[in-house]
Amino acid sequence: MRKLVTTFALLIVLGAPAYAQKAEIDAVNAKWIEFFNKGDFAGVASLYTEDATAFPPGAAMVKGRAAIAELWKGMAEQVSDPRLTTLDVKPLGPAAAREIGTFSLKTKGATPKEVTGKYVVVWEKVGNDWKLSSDIWNDGK
Amino acid sequence: MRKLVTTFALLIVLGAPAYAQKAEIDAVNAKWIEFFNKGDFAGVASLYTEDATAFPPGAAMVKGRAAIAELWKGMAEQVSDPRLTTLDVKPLGPAAAREIGTFSLKTKGATPKEVTGKYVVVWEKVGNDWKLSSDIWNDGK
Repeated sequence: MRKLVTTFALLIVLGAPAYAQKAEIDAVNAKWIEFFNKGDFAGVASLYTEDATAFPPGAAMVKGRAAIAELWKGMAEQVSDPRLTTLDVKPLGPAAAREIGTFSLKTKGATPKEVTGKYVVVWEKVGNDWKLSSDIWNDGK
Repeated sequence: MRKLVTTFALLIVLGAPAYAQKAEIDAVNAKWIEFFNKGDFAGVASLYTEDATAFPPGAAMVKGRAAIAELWKGMAEQVSDPRLTTLDVKPLGPAAAREIGTFSLKTKGATPKEVTGKYVVVWEKVGNDWKLSSDIWNDGK
């Protein structure tokens, strides 16, 4: 019986789910920026879950990686130099987390201006990877 | 040993967490609308977790029930008749869920117009109640 209990305890420790760490989310966000800046929108989309939804202001929500790649490709024609600042990562369970952050970017065109805003991303763990499963933002910091 | 296993199994079944159901979220949203329409902004705020964050477009994010009550009080001076349509509720664990929905409301003033948008709410279970823990929206349906 004691051996059984020990085995259970060990299983619990070894099998303990790894809750989302800010460092892991930061790393994916850094990849997001890297892919965006080099125009790799399939790369950006690969950071989302397959059925993820993104919510661009002033337009319809888009669902799925193909649509999300198109969304960011279109955005890149209008804006550049996106920057993300994660303010809070809250684990919601072993395989989900909620991130709150702010962003800035620059509009393209004759008179570029900086736009700032805030966002909420729900992250889900797929295999060993944290992926964006919903991504919504608006202006005003 | 078999008795032990049975006890464990029973505990698992009886203690099984109740994942968020759309009906539960709908019920809280109905209360949200009811409180808003009668100008009870403390009531609206009571539906949020104590440390919830709301993300009004074009303004800074606000945190905590007092600030959220102020936010909706201010909004009610500008808009009326909010309506929420929940499109999807995804449980993220036993005590968290992500809701996607659309909304409409009417602006006040000389020439009222309908505004539509979309939102993501992260819900957390506090005791027996589902509460909004983050609430973000933008325009464009």
